[in-house]
Amino acid sequence: MDIGFVGLGEMGSAIAANLLRAGHRVRVWNRSPEKAAPLVAQGAQLAATIEDAFAGDLVLSMLADDAAVRGVFDAGLLEQAPRGLIHVNMATISVALAERLAHAHAERGLHYVAAPVLGRPNVAALGQLTIVAAGPAEAIDRVQPAFDVIGKKTWRLGSLPQHANAVKLAANFSIASAIETMGEAAAMLVGHGVAVSDYIDVITNSILPGPVYQGYGTMIAERRYEPAMFKARLGLKDVRLALEAADAVSVPMPVGSVLRDNLIDAIAHGDGERDFAVLGEVAARRSGR
Amino acid sequence: MDIGFVGLGEMGSAIAANLLRAGHRVRVWNRSPEKAAPLVAQGAQLAATIEDAFAGDLVLSMLADDAAVRGVFDAGLLEQAPRGLIHVNMATISVALAERLAHAHAERGLHYVAAPVLGRPNVAALGQLTIVAAGPAEAIDRVQPAFDVIGKKTWRLGSLPQHANAVKLAANFSIASAIETMGEAAAMLVGHGVAVSDYIDVITNSILPGPVYQGYGTMIAERRYEPAMFKARLGLKDVRLALEAADAVSVPMPVGSVLRDNLIDAIAHGDGERDFAVLGEVAARRSGR
Amino acid sequence: MDIGFVGLGEMGSAIAANLLRAGHRVRVWNRSPEKAAPLVAQGAQLAATIEDAFAGDLVLSMLADDAAVRGVFDAGLLEQAPRGLIHVNMATISVALAERLAHAHAERGLHYVAAPVLGRPNVAALGQLTIVAAGPAEAIDRVQPAFDVIGKKTWRLGSLPQHANAVKLAANFSIASAIETMGEAAAMLVGHGVAVSDYIDVITNSILPGPVYQGYGTMIAERRYEPAMFKARLGLKDVRLALEAADAVSVPMPVGSVLRDNLIDAIAHGDGERDFAVLGEVAARRSGR
Amino acid sequence: MDIGFVGLGEMGSAIAANLLRAGHRVRVWNRSPEKAAPLVAQGAQLAATIEDAFAGDLVLSMLADDAAVRGVFDAGLLEQAPRGLIHVNMATISVALAERLAHAHAERGLHYVAAPVLGRPNVAALGQLTIVAAGPAEAIDRVQPAFDVIGKKTWRLGSLPQHANAVKLAANFSIASAIETMGEAAAMLVGHGVAVSDYIDVITNSILPGPVYQGYGTMIAERRYEPAMFKARLGLKDVRLALEAADAVSVPMPVGSVLRDNLIDAIAHGDGERDFAVLGEVAARRSGR
Repeated sequence: MDIGFVGLGEMGSAIAANLLRAGHRVRVWNRSPEKAAPLVAQGAQLAATIEDAFAGDLVLSMLADDAAVRGVFDAGLLEQAPRGLIHVNMATISVALAERLAHAHAERGLHYVAAPVLGRPNVAALGQLTIVAAGPAEAIDRVQPAFDVIGKKTWRLGSLPQHANAVKLAANFSIASAIETMGEAAAMLVGHGVAVSDYIDVITNSILPGPVYQGYGTMIAERRYEPAMFKARLGLKDVRLALEAADAVSVPMPVGSVLRDNLIDAIAHGDGERDFAVLGEVAARRSGR
Repeated sequence: MDIGFVGLGEMGSAIAANLLRAGHRVRVWNRSPEKAAPLVAQGAQLAATIEDAFAGDLVLSMLADDAAVRGVFDAGLLEQAPRGLIHVNMATISVALAERLAHAHAERGLHYVAAPVLGRPNVAALGQLTIVAAGPAEAIDRVQPAFDVIGKKTWRLGSLPQHANAVKLAANFSIASAIETMGEAAAMLVGHGVAVSDYIDVITNSILPGPVYQGYGTMIAERRYEPAMFKARLGLKDVRLALEAADAVSVPMPVGSVLRDNLIDAIAHGDGERDFAVLGEVAARRSGR
Repeated sequence: MDIGFVGLGEMGSAIAANLLRAGHRVRVWNRSPEKAAPLVAQGAQLAATIEDAFAGDLVLSMLADDAAVRGVFDAGLLEQAPRGLIHVNMATISVALAERLAHAHAERGLHYVAAPVLGRPNVAALGQLTIVAAGPAEAIDRVQPAFDVIGKKTWRLGSLPQHANAVKLAANFSIASAIETMGEAAAMLVGHGVAVSDYIDVITNSILPGPVYQGYGTMIAERRYEPAMFKARLGLKDVRLALEAADAVSVPMPVGSVLRDNLIDAIAHGDGERDFAVLGEVAARRSGR
Repeated sequence: MDIGFVGLGEMGSAIAANLLRAGHRVRVWNRSPEKAAPLVAQGAQLAATIEDAFAGDLVLSMLADDAAVRGVFDAGLLEQAPRGLIHVNMATISVALAERLAHAHAERGLHYVAAPVLGRPNVAALGQLTIVAAGPAEAIDRVQPAFDVIGKKTWRLGSLPQHANAVKLAANFSIASAIETMGEAAAMLVGHGVAVSDYIDVITNSILPGPVYQGYGTMIAERRYEPAMFKARLGLKDVRLALEAADAVSVPMPVGSVLRDNLIDAIAHGDGERDFAVLGEVAARRSGR
């Protein structure tokens, strides 16, 4: 396929590289163009403008946050895009913005698919992401070959794009809560002289297996938060989005509130650029250790 | 081995049955003796008194809670037990009580091992429990053959029995938090018209696999909390014990506090005997759904 | 003085009436003009456009919220205002918007004073408001005679207008917390069969006197939330603004988070238009009563 | 009257001194007898044993906490007390213990009045305490002359002694919440460069007057927590009792949970002996200031 790709951060670059490797024609664009160089070296075409990227069969975008997405789309990009183009937005954005974008695309005869992904850059590099997709069924059908290159599994959540974003935010909220929970438990155990790694070993080998408890749990046990696989600052962004989505439909999320408070505490202590697991440090610090 | 077994609730009965099946001689005792009948039918001897059960090579106890344990041991049971006896306490009790029992046993020349287990009665019946053991190494070595019959894996956490209880409480706290988290996320998703089962499917097949997210998540998605595998009332008991253990070493556990508040809310609404997953109903109710 | 007045809700109308009564010339404007009729009957001039109101010596504005304020000022109003005009913004708006407005006014040679008030419409009608003012000292000096008509006391908090908004938000947060606290205490007391009015009587006549504990406490004791003196929906708005102001400077506010959660719970149960004291109903409902 | 007085801490000594000054005959007893010396110098009789103090018309007790109260009464004191004696327990104890003591007294033909007080030692010294009394009406009638010497006002809350304790705990919870609220607001204001004293001045002179906001607010504004008028450690004790009373009747108290978490944080940082206002320091520390 002839694919435009917008947003070449760590995740975006890893995904675009996989598309190239699979033989797709990929036109790449990034706000700071130097990030495109490695992909161009792998055969990508450099789009001179974002409008050039927004053409062909399909455009994938992986921008940082709501502000970045609005910055691109509020500038009139959609007016110039060719009718019938499919835009797959892989960014973790707010439910409200996803809904607004879906309408804006539909009004202009464009197809909008939300396809946020689960997995960090190393998983993206292996083409093993979990893709959570929602939008018009025919559009997703046409995009599926690209998804198969990027991820190991595509979950299809119906025709309303924002539903995929809501599930993605619920998933990230779940990760945040698991981290906080391990952090609190670890602080309690340290207080009693128990090795935190024992607790992590026990739960990850029995009732709570998987990469979240394993990966973040190890960081908490070792009190080592660098290199950051996923930054606390970005974790706070996603927790805020989950709370906002809940507020919009009058749902209290008390654990979400604790996460927000504690991530703000982490930021206040200069830990925003450290790994999300640094929530463990908040718990340790509050217990005077 | 010649094994005494005290406490024949669902868990205790399943464990004792496996010991019998493996060819051990088992003397059983329960406060209400009718619970012993099925085991006697399987070959167990009925101990006339708890003192009779507290004899032989080894005694396993699986009593309901701190009050039940204190009820038995504060009545002078240890004075009459034969020196050298190993007592393995599998109950989920407080860290403070475990520490007190360890001292009381040591003073009387008895060996005390804490060995709380992870897994519900159906897992116990299969002999697939995860055993978290701590206490004198030689005592655990001698008990290991019995553990091998009961569980699929024994984690050894050192020589201080209460450390095993602290890890068990941390594990149950982690389960409670996972349930609450799914409940809050579910309420948010329902508010946006998303099927909760989609969220559960996505996370359990990717980042958060395993029996906790799978089992409780399904109950929350279906809003079905009976039959209760583990009752909310007992979940609150364990959350209280975790908070108490944390308080004893000056550790705030804000997610623990949310869990306590919400489990009290569940109890207040008559849901104490329903499954622990009923935390999902608290979140739903608070959002007016 | 020749005073423009923008925003004729309950508070604004009561304030404008006092200015008229004191002999000032008042030009009034409101988005829905029928609200101006009673004031015109009392001698106010009706401004045909908001630009007509933004003239003279001084303009007071009392708009509903950030959206209403932005709606007016982002439409270019300041470009047309006469240089040297003093604008006193009495609305409870965000710290961030106050700071932005201060800059926008200064850039155009206009004087911006933030002067949010403490007190409900009945207090406003009596000219007994507490005024919390910040901005250029000379501007406040010139406005003081108008303040003396409106309020019983003006607190001057320095030259940065947003400081007044921050204190106003802190004050409203304090009120919200006092209400929530009484609600929780009341639920506990009801559980023990104690008359809530006894508790309210004891604290308001000793350690916690004053209109907040007295007024809201009586509503909670009587479980009567209508007529609404200050609506729960507006209370949530202000709590959100306090949390936002705290987030902007990396300050966790855990009680603020509880207030937000519980006010969302109130909204979810259809109580947004009832009095702020309806937080007491959230606590009662959570305890099953 | 012939009055026994048990428990000569700061509060007890101040109260007993007032009774002496009013001409009552007072027999004093304290676990560490040297505390009795100043009162003996003022005319009190030293009771050789606590049994000697538990005689006469009336005994007032002001012990530290549940453990101290149980320590005295579980030792058989009531068996030896003369039938018809009135015991007025002024300590802040749990609702559950109050209820148990009421029964124990009644069984032995003794009259039990709960009369916890509001006010710190300096208020006690002035005879200006607020007394919250509950118990048999005739007993309170007979004690009233002593209450009139001790306090400025006696609130009578009916015939069940534990009701007075529930209200006392609700009052102390309300104080704790007011302190926490000011602490959080102060941290937010400091973040924006606002003087905390401005906020305290505004609220205490308008919507939230009285000694709690004034006294603790000043300490928070000055970040000065010594000398401790009421220690954080004791504040945590009372918050725990309020939560326990609520738990007993299935009432969630989410602000109570925040208070508990934050007071534990204070204790963890070595601030247990500083003033209750040190909650403000927890908020400041969490914001990195």
